[in-house]
Amino acid sequence: MLTYIFVIAITAEAMSGALAAGRRNMDLFGVALIAFMTALGGGTVRDMLLGNYPVVWTQHPLYIYLTIGAGLFTIVIAKYMRRLNRIFLLVDAMGLVAFTIIGCNVALRLEYETPVVIMAGITTGIFGGILRDIMCNRMPQVLRHELYASVSFLVAILYLGMIHFGINENINLIISFVFGLSMRMAAIRWSWSLPVFSYSPDRWNG
Amino acid sequence: MLTYIFVIAITAEAMSGALAAGRRNMDLFGVALIAFMTALGGGTVRDMLLGNYPVVWTQHPLYIYLTIGAGLFTIVIAKYMRRLNRIFLLVDAMGLVAFTIIGCNVALRLEYETPVVIMAGITTGIFGGILRDIMCNRMPQVLRHELYASVSFLVAILYLGMIHFGINENINLIISFVFGLSMRMAAIRWSWSLPVFSYSPDRWNG
Amino acid sequence: MLTYIFVIAITAEAMSGALAAGRRNMDLFGVALIAFMTALGGGTVRDMLLGNYPVVWTQHPLYIYLTIGAGLFTIVIAKYMRRLNRIFLLVDAMGLVAFTIIGCNVALRLEYETPVVIMAGITTGIFGGILRDIMCNRMPQVLRHELYASVSFLVAILYLGMIHFGINENINLIISFVFGLSMRMAAIRWSWSLPVFSYSPDRWNG
Repeated sequence: MLTYIFVIAITAEAMSGALAAGRRNMDLFGVALIAFMTALGGGTVRDMLLGNYPVVWTQHPLYIYLTIGAGLFTIVIAKYMRRLNRIFLLVDAMGLVAFTIIGCNVALRLEYETPVVIMAGITTGIFGGILRDIMCNRMPQVLRHELYASVSFLVAILYLGMIHFGINENINLIISFVFGLSMRMAAIRWSWSLPVFSYSPDRWNG
Repeated sequence: MLTYIFVIAITAEAMSGALAAGRRNMDLFGVALIAFMTALGGGTVRDMLLGNYPVVWTQHPLYIYLTIGAGLFTIVIAKYMRRLNRIFLLVDAMGLVAFTIIGCNVALRLEYETPVVIMAGITTGIFGGILRDIMCNRMPQVLRHELYASVSFLVAILYLGMIHFGINENINLIISFVFGLSMRMAAIRWSWSLPVFSYSPDRWNG
Repeated sequence: MLTYIFVIAITAEAMSGALAAGRRNMDLFGVALIAFMTALGGGTVRDMLLGNYPVVWTQHPLYIYLTIGAGLFTIVIAKYMRRLNRIFLLVDAMGLVAFTIIGCNVALRLEYETPVVIMAGITTGIFGGILRDIMCNRMPQVLRHELYASVSFLVAILYLGMIHFGINENINLIISFVFGLSMRMAAIRWSWSLPVFSYSPDRWNG
């Protein structure tokens, strides 16, 4: 099941990357590259951090075609995206949860300690979006808007907690998804966000 | 032959990095670092993606001296660069083709599948320029201007196609270079570029 | 001794990351992530470049807690930071020297050649700050202000030179720290900086 959701999720992330590239007036190649990086960049950074070679997508060329295809297809349907916004946000939230759980599992298999497992989950969940924003020369959005990275963090904690208490894997997945999707949707609906830290310049940090 | 062209190419890329650093008023250290990253960053990212350790330049300290030296030398000759613009563009195009072919060969030797080999070629070809632009806090130029990344893509396809059909390596190299240089020069001469995708902001991509 | 200084140093770097995040009005998660990346990013990039797996912090979860804790704690004491500015600059300079020496030692242990050892030292010393600035969408400060990256370079040269001449390790450490701290403090006090390279745009680098 996680694989199906993963495939849907990388498609959604690729589309989000393509839209960001479109806002910067990039050419077709830029759209394809940023779609690819947004969808698969989180897992790539995770694999490089954990020394998990070969990097996952290099063993699944299908993911390359899928994300680039989804990115280019987005150009065609961009004008309908606003209408699809709700579905898009839902699929994106599914991706966030799926990426987080997959990232945790990779680090667990490599026998890293719990805090590193959580970092691996979050990295998989949010780093594609961070790379997208760096490539588009803007501040990482995931660190400023409604709860997003925090949802990834809480899902990782919940998922690992249930593993710790020996909960059946399928039940664990269902609970983690219900929890993660609810949190994210509620955060969007009621504009939940973390407190912001605002600091005015001083000399040294000029 | 490829090695000679590679050495010329990293020199040219280092100079392009130094000029970009100069536009941001960086100090000598910044110029040296960005020259180094522009010239060797593409191959470094490729090696890190493919798990190809040790990273190439760590085994060839000469490349470190060469790129940093070329970067600092650029400061001296910067005022003549405009006059040298045509030669510079030609050498840069040679670098793009050489980097692409070298990147493909590294991935081939590690027995990655064809789509990954192509990605390795493109990464080697364009990622130095992308790192340069990220360090200089600007949009990656290679994804917006005249055909550049696309030339890398087409050269990779052509080169691998000729390997597939058993063409002699030297003939393959010559054809790939003639094709790649012609494409790039024609793109500059007649301002060929890919269609651009322009998308206006919506709430979620704020 | 180096370990104690390292712990103090990553705390200081985490605080510098948190302040930079605060200037961009990031949320708590953003503050924590950027504190972590600023403190441990230099060593992480070094380990990924050298193929030094597992990456250091993945084996010391304490560093994760410490840097994130220091980042969040900075929010509480931010209003006193201006008064603490001198201490902060001193600790930051200690960190720069400690990171550089630690980076050199990692590369020495892996038997890389001298230029690569120096690059490893500098990468450990300055890349946390570079990642912080990329995440905050600003130009890397370490390449523009008073001598900073250059201090890392000179400390690496001095430290390796003393190893080459068989100086006792403890004496080497003391001399390297005294030299590095003096250089950095003098650079701040008298605004020493490297010459700047300013280059005005031409067509190709547009």
